[in-house]
Amino acid sequence: MNRKDHLTIIGLGLGSVMLLWSMTMGSELIIFWDFASVIITIGGSFCALLVNYPMKDVKNIFKVMAVSFKDSPTSGIETINIFTDLSKKARREGLLSLEDEIVTLEDDFLKKGLQMVIDGIEPETIKDIMELEINEMENRHNVGIGILKAWGGYAPAFGMIGTLIGLIQMLAYLSDSSAIASGMAKALITTFYGAIMANLVFNPMSAKLAHKNEEEAAVKDMMLEGILAIQSGVNPRIVEDKLVSYLPPKERKRFKEAKIVEGVVEGV
Amino acid sequence: MNRKDHLTIIGLGLGSVMLLWSMTMGSELIIFWDFASVIITIGGSFCALLVNYPMKDVKNIFKVMAVSFKDSPTSGIETINIFTDLSKKARREGLLSLEDEIVTLEDDFLKKGLQMVIDGIEPETIKDIMELEINEMENRHNVGIGILKAWGGYAPAFGMIGTLIGLIQMLAYLSDSSAIASGMAKALITTFYGAIMANLVFNPMSAKLAHKNEEEAAVKDMMLEGILAIQSGVNPRIVEDKLVSYLPPKERKRFKEAKIVEGVVEGV
Amino acid sequence: MNRKDHLTIIGLGLGSVMLLWSMTMGSELIIFWDFASVIITIGGSFCALLVNYPMKDVKNIFKVMAVSFKDSPTSGIETINIFTDLSKKARREGLLSLEDEIVTLEDDFLKKGLQMVIDGIEPETIKDIMELEINEMENRHNVGIGILKAWGGYAPAFGMIGTLIGLIQMLAYLSDSSAIASGMAKALITTFYGAIMANLVFNPMSAKLAHKNEEEAAVKDMMLEGILAIQSGVNPRIVEDKLVSYLPPKERKRFKEAKIVEGVVEGV
Amino acid sequence: MNRKDHLTIIGLGLGSVMLLWSMTMGSELIIFWDFASVIITIGGSFCALLVNYPMKDVKNIFKVMAVSFKDSPTSGIETINIFTDLSKKARREGLLSLEDEIVTLEDDFLKKGLQMVIDGIEPETIKDIMELEINEMENRHNVGIGILKAWGGYAPAFGMIGTLIGLIQMLAYLSDSSAIASGMAKALITTFYGAIMANLVFNPMSAKLAHKNEEEAAVKDMMLEGILAIQSGVNPRIVEDKLVSYLPPKERKRFKEAKIVEGVVEGV
Amino acid sequence: MNRKDHLTIIGLGLGSVMLLWSMTMGSELIIFWDFASVIITIGGSFCALLVNYPMKDVKNIFKVMAVSFKDSPTSGIETINIFTDLSKKARREGLLSLEDEIVTLEDDFLKKGLQMVIDGIEPETIKDIMELEINEMENRHNVGIGILKAWGGYAPAFGMIGTLIGLIQMLAYLSDSSAIASGMAKALITTFYGAIMANLVFNPMSAKLAHKNEEEAAVKDMMLEGILAIQSGVNPRIVEDKLVSYLPPKERKRFKEAKIVEGVVEGV
Repeated sequence: MNRKDHLTIIGLGLGSVMLLWSMTMGSELIIFWDFASVIITIGGSFCALLVNYPMKDVKNIFKVMAVSFKDSPTSGIETINIFTDLSKKARREGLLSLEDEIVTLEDDFLKKGLQMVIDGIEPETIKDIMELEINEMENRHNVGIGILKAWGGYAPAFGMIGTLIGLIQMLAYLSDSSAIASGMAKALITTFYGAIMANLVFNPMSAKLAHKNEEEAAVKDMMLEGILAIQSGVNPRIVEDKLVSYLPPKERKRFKEAKIVEGVVEGV
Repeated sequence: MNRKDHLTIIGLGLGSVMLLWSMTMGSELIIFWDFASVIITIGGSFCALLVNYPMKDVKNIFKVMAVSFKDSPTSGIETINIFTDLSKKARREGLLSLEDEIVTLEDDFLKKGLQMVIDGIEPETIKDIMELEINEMENRHNVGIGILKAWGGYAPAFGMIGTLIGLIQMLAYLSDSSAIASGMAKALITTFYGAIMANLVFNPMSAKLAHKNEEEAAVKDMMLEGILAIQSGVNPRIVEDKLVSYLPPKERKRFKEAKIVEGVVEGV
Repeated sequence: MNRKDHLTIIGLGLGSVMLLWSMTMGSELIIFWDFASVIITIGGSFCALLVNYPMKDVKNIFKVMAVSFKDSPTSGIETINIFTDLSKKARREGLLSLEDEIVTLEDDFLKKGLQMVIDGIEPETIKDIMELEINEMENRHNVGIGILKAWGGYAPAFGMIGTLIGLIQMLAYLSDSSAIASGMAKALITTFYGAIMANLVFNPMSAKLAHKNEEEAAVKDMMLEGILAIQSGVNPRIVEDKLVSYLPPKERKRFKEAKIVEGVVEGV
Repeated sequence: MNRKDHLTIIGLGLGSVMLLWSMTMGSELIIFWDFASVIITIGGSFCALLVNYPMKDVKNIFKVMAVSFKDSPTSGIETINIFTDLSKKARREGLLSLEDEIVTLEDDFLKKGLQMVIDGIEPETIKDIMELEINEMENRHNVGIGILKAWGGYAPAFGMIGTLIGLIQMLAYLSDSSAIASGMAKALITTFYGAIMANLVFNPMSAKLAHKNEEEAAVKDMMLEGILAIQSGVNPRIVEDKLVSYLPPKERKRFKEAKIVEGVVEGV
Repeated sequence: MNRKDHLTIIGLGLGSVMLLWSMTMGSELIIFWDFASVIITIGGSFCALLVNYPMKDVKNIFKVMAVSFKDSPTSGIETINIFTDLSKKARREGLLSLEDEIVTLEDDFLKKGLQMVIDGIEPETIKDIMELEINEMENRHNVGIGILKAWGGYAPAFGMIGTLIGLIQMLAYLSDSSAIASGMAKALITTFYGAIMANLVFNPMSAKLAHKNEEEAAVKDMMLEGILAIQSGVNPRIVEDKLVSYLPPKERKRFKEAKIVEGVVEGV
């Protein structure tokens, strides 16, 4: 799976195209490029992050950014279908028969949980271990959300620092007109870079990751509920009913309609 | 029903007229129009929203904005009158007689609740299902409120980005006076667009939706209370007394005065 | 009663005089007047309020502003004296004798409560009804406090929008010097109007109303306690002791000193 | 006692000297003085406070500011020593013997508490009365902290209003160069005054008062504990142990070292 | 131990190099140096801190800043290894045998706890005393975090005050071009200094200290758990299991892998 989050890509791509197009209206694009400004804005704000965060958090920052380009690996409806199949099989052929199914599953969390069921571990222990894992996932995500938000705050600040450097240079050499151009370019370009980094990249990405975090945690809660239901050997229909209550209203409706169609086809 | 919220329309209309009038004072209106600025401010901030929110939320944004132009579909006083009639009928002719009334009702939430009463479903189950529906409605509204607020934050930010583009262009071609005009126009016009979008449109609309959300949730709470009262078969007068306590003081007064007039006319 | 809150009047008056005086230092006052700026700043921000709030809240805004010019109708010490007299009379001549006193009272809340006591309504019912009324009063006040705060936020925003209009006009007609004057005047005058509206009028008024709200709620809590004490027929001296504990330390001291003087005079 | 808080005085003094010194670098000091600017910034922001706060709070504002120049009247270590002496005396000669000691005490809170012990008032009553007094002290302080913070917010706002007045005046008389000087002076000087008032005076003072408030409340809690311990007649050593646990770690260490020295000297 | 936090040093160092490099692009470095600006920005904001905080907090500020350059003294994995060894020894040779080990330990908190175990103090008392110590450490750290954050707020404010001084000087001597240079230099350089102090030094350092605080508190919680486990004489393997649950997932994995390697080598 690991489908792409097309919206993040479209947003960043379309936003860049719009900005580039309007930058070419009435001027050449090259006037918006300044290497020293890149160093001050991106480099400077990254240095502030190094002071701000411990090593183990900074190391993950690019992995974290990549996550906002990926769609949530498992959707709610798929998860319900998986569990309906698994619980039917477990009822007919016993819990041990799930061993063959585990190999075909893609989600590590789900695999681990089912393996524990097959190994005959106590439900309380399974619950404790898997809830701890969900908590750990949320903490890991929150660090990523926080570090992107912090970068989104330092970027405009270092943009302003670059602008001040440029203005001071310009004022010091008022008589030399070439220095004015160089100074003012850095002056406004750093603020420009900082504003784009914060408002098109870091702040929206940080918010997107927070949405994904909520969604993934909800799917994992659903999986835990399903695993415990299979272990307790309840009716597959009840397993399905329980999991459906985790879906948002729209998906619930779509799921029910799909069931009806399926029911008609299956002749149930 | 679905009456219009005249205040939202008047506020937006009158505000636009005032701004347009003052823009024509001492200049032609055309100087405030710049296509590239529209692209940067509206387009750019919308791209940031695409990065910020998942697909299912962004898709609803125009539907959400339309809601702030509509009045709450059902008012408190009407709801009380409906319930007084329904409870009288239920008392005289039995709960099943309500079946004919349901067809004439306009509110889906009310219809669903009464249908469950006629179907003889347990009060606890009715309460659970309908409270879940109220919760879902509030969650749906909160997403809409949040997305408008986020747009109201990104709009001025992209206004500032556009201003920076314009200023950098102007500084790069200081010798060419026509470029100055083009540059400065974009420079300030984007900030101008962003400020109006945030302060006349998105922020007030987001706050209006929050008010509507509270009001609708209160009416639905009232309906749930009324449905459960009808099911338990209490006296119509007590049903009315219970529901009146949900009204704000002014409406309560108006309702009582209307009752007295009615009482005199009816000779009660 | 309905005494004026001299401090609000003095603050607004003195503040205006100071500003006007410094505006006349080195220039004529007329340069600070611009009709279009009034329209943009006051009119525009009021239109944003129309979009922001439902009709029933906007309608009350001028009534709400008037409240911040009035002093709290009843003070704590007066209230204690009223209750000491009432409880003495109730003890000597019975609860029904209070009927004559009610006519002379000015506070509607107090009248309503005592009438219920005379009518022999249960203490629990009186408590419920009067606490509901206190809650409603606080909600009503909070809407007023919120709407003034919102206006205090929109006013500087529309001041900035007006400034942008003025700057864009000025830039468009750089060659025409009379347009510069007109443009720049609007430009800064709207920001000036918005800053005064927010910092001298709306924000301080909103805070003053919040103080008044707390005070009035405290007096009403005191009245409720007093009414219930009279109904239960406790000793007038105990009624007084109970109510005194609601006073802030300074007023408590003043009240005790007044009692001693009175005691000496009365020869008690 | 009432020792001075040297740090507040040093901070304000040294800060003023630094600012004055840098103001004299390359210019005469007189250019930073403008009477109209004082009126707008200090007078205007004070008028906003008059609208913002009720009379009884505004009246105390200068008394409140004076407090931030005074050190906390009683330190923790002194308080422990006082209580060790008092509890020894109470054990040897009885509670009534404390009457002579009270006269020599400087703290009113402590005097009142011990007087109640001598008068034989119940421990619960003493606790209630003295906790009420601590609460009242904290409320009184919080009003002072809030009013300084509010002034620290209005001062820069009125600084900006003064700057706008100056800029508008300057723009209106562009042809008259003497008006420019007068206008621009007021323009920036008011912002300058407002920034200093907020960042060197009101905001830091407000924070200092909050620290003092916490400290005084801790000392009073300690006194209350000590008074109740004396009343219950526990061993002086246990009184001391209890009170020591209220000290911050550093003072605790210092206190213990002092005890050892004392012990050696006393030969205990 | 007391290893250095290389990230803080790298962040500050690399950030400074980047800023210095871009400052030398197109100008000499000397134009960014102004002694009066250092006095206003660093000195002025430090004076505001003196007014803001009590003596005992201000005294520690440089010690606090030094902490953000040091790595946490003890890591989780080391701590577990120490406890595994200690609990093995305690089991074989009795609690008193730990006396020899204490001398070799570097952590004072750990030493104090083990000494109490050897001295036969009750588990509850040990827990109380050591939790108090953890609390005190956190309070001490929070004061440091708060004071750096406050400095990070006052620094840009005094940067702006310096800028205003420079602008006013420049306006007063418009005719003297050398004064303009001096005035404007101070004007922008102070804002530049203030922005760097806040965004590269104080704010990130304050956040780093907050991370360190959390980490150290977690290690100390782990130590307390280990000390109590040794005292109660549980199996060394269970001590290890308990402490491992305090590690973050990554370290837990690394610890387990190290154990396996060790196990193979040891032939267990």
